[in-house]
Amino acid sequence: MASNDDIPLKKGPLNGVTVLDFSRVLAGPYCTMVLADLGARVIKVEKIGSGDDTREFGPFIEDESAYFTCFNRRKESIALDIKSPRDRALLEQLLDTSDVLVENFRPGVMDRLGYGPDRLAKTHPHLIYASISGFGHSGPFSELPGYDMVVQAMGGVMSLTGWPDGEPARVGTSFGDLGAALFAVVGIVSSLYSRTKDAQGTRVDIGMLDCQAALMETALASCDINGVAPTRAGDAHPALAPFESFRAADDKIIIAAGNDTLFLLMAETIGDTALALDPRFASNPLRVQNRPELVVEIEKLLSKKPVQHWINVLNEAGVPCSPINTIDKILDHPQLLSRNMIVKVQGPNGKPFKTAGNPIKLTGHEEIDTDVAMHAPGLSQHRESVLAELMAGRGSYDQPATKHKNADAKSTSNAPRRNSSAA
Amino acid sequence: MASNDDIPLKKGPLNGVTVLDFSRVLAGPYCTMVLADLGARVIKVEKIGSGDDTREFGPFIEDESAYFTCFNRRKESIALDIKSPRDRALLEQLLDTSDVLVENFRPGVMDRLGYGPDRLAKTHPHLIYASISGFGHSGPFSELPGYDMVVQAMGGVMSLTGWPDGEPARVGTSFGDLGAALFAVVGIVSSLYSRTKDAQGTRVDIGMLDCQAALMETALASCDINGVAPTRAGDAHPALAPFESFRAADDKIIIAAGNDTLFLLMAETIGDTALALDPRFASNPLRVQNRPELVVEIEKLLSKKPVQHWINVLNEAGVPCSPINTIDKILDHPQLLSRNMIVKVQGPNGKPFKTAGNPIKLTGHEEIDTDVAMHAPGLSQHRESVLAELMAGRGSYDQPATKHKNADAKSTSNAPRRNSSAA
Repeated sequence: MASNDDIPLKKGPLNGVTVLDFSRVLAGPYCTMVLADLGARVIKVEKIGSGDDTREFGPFIEDESAYFTCFNRRKESIALDIKSPRDRALLEQLLDTSDVLVENFRPGVMDRLGYGPDRLAKTHPHLIYASISGFGHSGPFSELPGYDMVVQAMGGVMSLTGWPDGEPARVGTSFGDLGAALFAVVGIVSSLYSRTKDAQGTRVDIGMLDCQAALMETALASCDINGVAPTRAGDAHPALAPFESFRAADDKIIIAAGNDTLFLLMAETIGDTALALDPRFASNPLRVQNRPELVVEIEKLLSKKPVQHWINVLNEAGVPCSPINTIDKILDHPQLLSRNMIVKVQGPNGKPFKTAGNPIKLTGHEEIDTDVAMHAPGLSQHRESVLAELMAGRGSYDQPATKHKNADAKSTSNAPRRNSSAA
Repeated sequence: MASNDDIPLKKGPLNGVTVLDFSRVLAGPYCTMVLADLGARVIKVEKIGSGDDTREFGPFIEDESAYFTCFNRRKESIALDIKSPRDRALLEQLLDTSDVLVENFRPGVMDRLGYGPDRLAKTHPHLIYASISGFGHSGPFSELPGYDMVVQAMGGVMSLTGWPDGEPARVGTSFGDLGAALFAVVGIVSSLYSRTKDAQGTRVDIGMLDCQAALMETALASCDINGVAPTRAGDAHPALAPFESFRAADDKIIIAAGNDTLFLLMAETIGDTALALDPRFASNPLRVQNRPELVVEIEKLLSKKPVQHWINVLNEAGVPCSPINTIDKILDHPQLLSRNMIVKVQGPNGKPFKTAGNPIKLTGHEEIDTDVAMHAPGLSQHRESVLAELMAGRGSYDQPATKHKNADAKSTSNAPRRNSSAA
């Protein structure tokens, strides 16, 4: 990426933002991981004793959870006993100095702990309060437990995933959690932006089911207009052909040549220009309609050579194509390596392992991308340092230039200025 | 959601932000749809004559593309002839008054048109320049075409999706495009936030393949640590049991009871507490190990009653569960209806149809959520109004309080031009 020489490197666009993170498991921690990757300081508030449930989730690296390490890199951890007056007082100070609170408990839990959104909107109006839950904090399902598996089934993506003659399949990654996490990040950062203008915090209420619906592309519209629910299409795009896998001599290859120009190019490249002149395949709608015959014709040609041969010649011709990579191929993928997308992270035991990096590449912020090893915290590893900071009166939230409307309500904070040494 | 009485309704947190949108098809338009849903003004710059390719994509509603309407609601459209000096002059004015530029051409195309990121970083340093491409603007694959289907195959999600004894399946929605779109939104809004401090634009470079890697959860770590590539698990969570579908009397039901407490609750609720005492199923690791027997035992019980019965009693008991909904169920889902997640949109022909709304629910911004009908523009529908606005000298970008470092470079719209040279 191009870099402007006159822009000094900064620690990410969210440098200066402090996130108090009550979340655990996946959706919340993934959301705050993205915020941390963009330079926010994330202080993870964990349950005393055991911490985030995922500290017990595999895969393990020498008894330490790599699951936890993956999504909690670059965060600080403080374990708090919410029942103890001392820790509750500490929490008030942390709230005074934080910009964002993230939680993914079931609706009502934070209220019962005394840190619900209604109370904090009064005492900490500067705070952006983000909740991620299965169904959001309103509506008839809001009290129900919503896990990734549940919202994948309820939200429709399973009905669309898998082979037409087979059972619905789960998306092979936690699409329900991760989709919600990303919408939560958008809600939080948008609220940080609007707070620079009106100095007001916002409540961000993300329901995983809502996010599933939002990610169904045109399936809802298509069902409403045609009166027929779309269903599974295996590995093909339902409205484009060829746009699917084909068997070559040794394995399957994906070819995505969904318009006439690409189809002609493909036909030429795999050795039979006549294919593009065949009246059965003269347009994309015809190719979709005659897909089975199209597949037969294409596989006749592809079966003569292995996948790698076809990848080479199709790439040369500019026809979109790919092998169906297994995960081991991802770790060594030349494009991902060159983009700093394979990074090393480590937990307190100091054994690094590989996972995916930050895909948001920003000019002028390259340093957030190139840390060689990123650490995840031990349980309450930062209790002393966070405490010392609060005692010293350091740390304040990332206050906008304009004044607070409700400055009085916030004046309990005896922490005037943040020191750039934080984090 | 709770609402603070003293906060006036605003038109979304991104109100005041202008986005000049050169993108077409899905990833770019979805990104700018999210920005528009949050209150940004999006001016879609379309190819003269035909416009966005998706104006020809189904599903159709009376010959008008519902595909286009879905992702271009709330936007304005202006068709420009990039070859004409008059339209190029107009474009310079639009660049002067925009905050964000979004494009999803292949790397090099915008440079050749004279609107590449390097040129605009010099002439319009306030601009946030966001690119979405298959592989990003650097690395050995950057020139290759990357469609959703290609990155789903290349990035690994297909290898994880489908049944263990079957072929890899595509995620039944365009996970490659939509994931990239959301990371792009995060990059853009984070850059808007940091611009309020340093008055500097940023280049945001999103590669769809990078985003796929970032969404693989723990698959990369697991492969690196265990030396074995994870593979397909049908509809089950690979590391939790029971966390999958089971056959009841009439259909399949998802039950997600991945910890001991929920497993005991489930066993009680479906009628056999002894299941939770069975030594084969005493812990989650054991249940994962003995999954086939577990499924047999659970289905013995579930086969006695239909799905809706089990949903009722499991919900009552607090055990996460769901039917596997087809898309028609989504359009009428009581939770989604109560959350304003099913909205009506319409194109120029005025025939409304249903699609998903905005899942980012923000207190104080409810009005962005409750518009009854949202419009997508006809091709160049807003040319005259945008032109009139520029002539009247109205419109300026959402300038931060601080001064520009490079204010001089931006002071004229006849700023130095770069001629068409490839990146």
